[in-house]
Amino acid sequence: MLHIMFENSDQSKTDLSELGEFGLIDHLTKSFNITPEFTLKGIGDDAAVLDFKEEKVIVTTDLLVEGVHFDLSYMPLKHLGYKAVMVNLSDVYAMNATPRQITVSIAVSNRFPVEALEELYAGIKLASKLYKVDVVGGDTSSSTSGLIISVTALGGAKEEEVVYRSGAKTNDLLVVTGDLGAAYMGLQVLEREKQVFKVNPKNQPDLDPYTYLIERQLKPEARKDIPPLFKALEVKPTSMIDISDGLSSEVIHLCKNSKTGVNLFEEKIPLDPAVISVCEEFQLDSTTIALSGGEDYELLFTIDQGDYDKIKGNPNFTVIGHMTEEAEGMHLVTRANQKIPLIARGWNAMDKKEDKK
Amino acid sequence: MLHIMFENSDQSKTDLSELGEFGLIDHLTKSFNITPEFTLKGIGDDAAVLDFKEEKVIVTTDLLVEGVHFDLSYMPLKHLGYKAVMVNLSDVYAMNATPRQITVSIAVSNRFPVEALEELYAGIKLASKLYKVDVVGGDTSSSTSGLIISVTALGGAKEEEVVYRSGAKTNDLLVVTGDLGAAYMGLQVLEREKQVFKVNPKNQPDLDPYTYLIERQLKPEARKDIPPLFKALEVKPTSMIDISDGLSSEVIHLCKNSKTGVNLFEEKIPLDPAVISVCEEFQLDSTTIALSGGEDYELLFTIDQGDYDKIKGNPNFTVIGHMTEEAEGMHLVTRANQKIPLIARGWNAMDKKEDKK
Repeated sequence: MLHIMFENSDQSKTDLSELGEFGLIDHLTKSFNITPEFTLKGIGDDAAVLDFKEEKVIVTTDLLVEGVHFDLSYMPLKHLGYKAVMVNLSDVYAMNATPRQITVSIAVSNRFPVEALEELYAGIKLASKLYKVDVVGGDTSSSTSGLIISVTALGGAKEEEVVYRSGAKTNDLLVVTGDLGAAYMGLQVLEREKQVFKVNPKNQPDLDPYTYLIERQLKPEARKDIPPLFKALEVKPTSMIDISDGLSSEVIHLCKNSKTGVNLFEEKIPLDPAVISVCEEFQLDSTTIALSGGEDYELLFTIDQGDYDKIKGNPNFTVIGHMTEEAEGMHLVTRANQKIPLIARGWNAMDKKEDKK
Repeated sequence: MLHIMFENSDQSKTDLSELGEFGLIDHLTKSFNITPEFTLKGIGDDAAVLDFKEEKVIVTTDLLVEGVHFDLSYMPLKHLGYKAVMVNLSDVYAMNATPRQITVSIAVSNRFPVEALEELYAGIKLASKLYKVDVVGGDTSSSTSGLIISVTALGGAKEEEVVYRSGAKTNDLLVVTGDLGAAYMGLQVLEREKQVFKVNPKNQPDLDPYTYLIERQLKPEARKDIPPLFKALEVKPTSMIDISDGLSSEVIHLCKNSKTGVNLFEEKIPLDPAVISVCEEFQLDSTTIALSGGEDYELLFTIDQGDYDKIKGNPNFTVIGHMTEEAEGMHLVTRANQKIPLIARGWNAMDKKEDKK
């Protein structure tokens, strides 16, 4: 994967117009199968017809815009397709639900040949296969500039299994899956190499030390293992959210929706060694990166203290704090044991994706 | 409505960046209510949670791109928001289903002030109120150019009530609601006035003779009355599709999906007198316009001949032909009683929206 970065592809190119009316989306979606148990009708009618049995329907949507959410100079289209699906599935898992279907709409300018869109759809197809979701609809339009991908994901969950952002209680433990900050640092590495490439296109950088970071940025995986793990451990989180915008802002969402405060312990935040070393290289503070970096697609949740024994020692989980009375406020407790107010770092509304979910 | 066209608005303008992170979508959606019977959780969590009871779930999505599907020089933003919802609801009605929820994502460039997006959302809100659908999610992003709106609609229908494109049988009657071609001719009028306006901005055109046409273009209504009417008349269509791309291509979709041929009678195609007169003015053939114009958002369906008495004389319906054996082919029978092969007119794939539905 890393070797194709910054190379100019010279594959054969088919102009979009050659496929004619209705040809493009048929061509791109002809190989998509459906799961008859949950999808009665997929692509090919005015709308899809889905069967959720006894389950409630979970729905979420996300839009990815070229030049805002991705840069095609280092994001291969196949990865982009894969990631566009992951971003949405992550939201479904964050409800403790199982994704079943997605719809995918794209707006694309004529500068993309058919082969480029085939790559994009190859990534979408791979994601849908690995995560067992059916592609049941979509729309393909031209755009005056760039590429825009809009994905909607549908999932199912029994009503009593759904976990909202709003159920955390005082003294609940705050827990996170995986580790944080790697996707953001992967982006920093890619941005740096892009600048180097501009100056010296013949330079072939050694990106091996950054493999984990770059993969977290270019090919994130949604945590499909976590909802079944909760079931196996007989734990139901009291609240949950996925980490798309950075730990800090997600913790604040849980607190505000649950009307609690929080003490988040800096020393507990899980960081991969590669994040720590690349933060040193870039002279960035790794805690700040974990709090504000975003795009980790890990799950952040709270559990009752009585459930602690059920998750203790599980390598998927790290307890990073506990909820407090709302009046106590939201704080980061630093390694020096200072309490500093937690703020939603991040970017201006229009520089970074505004995710209402 | 017609009086605001081509005027420069000088309303107060708030830069998008003033609302800050998370401010924009909160601001735009704060007044949206939900229907607790069908929507357990709307905007404000990782995903919405919906209840379809005993019904199957119908889902469809459409993307509207500035410069491709709409021109803001004559499309007021409120109408655009309304139309973006209608386009999707029409697909739900075409399955003989009831729409319940929508999600709305927009990508927007900085040239739009907050007030412009408020107008857009006012149209979305009006549509959701009149058509009784909840806005349950969405995403707001910046775009490098222009405005893109992605709407996904969800609806419910009992499994035995769903009508697909594929159920038409030989000898079934082909029926259409309303009249055809008006939206397309409304667009022609608006395009002409735009050119006039460019030359002489002080010209205030008299658009009254074109009111119906322009309203069909700028403020189409999806046929929410039709599924309950079928129920009242105790008719279940054998196949159905909505007319978004023009009668001709929709008839072909029904035939291909149902493996039938068709005889479509030119003299039966319902045209509003305003369409006939404006086609004369533009020196266009009104049959061609009805066949290829698109954006009518009427419903096209087939019924068993035995059901003819149930719909006979109903002003909503016009029988325009009948289905034949597949081997007989798809034909338009002209007023001169000539049979000419029906072809999917329309535009190049990338000039006009590719609608996979």
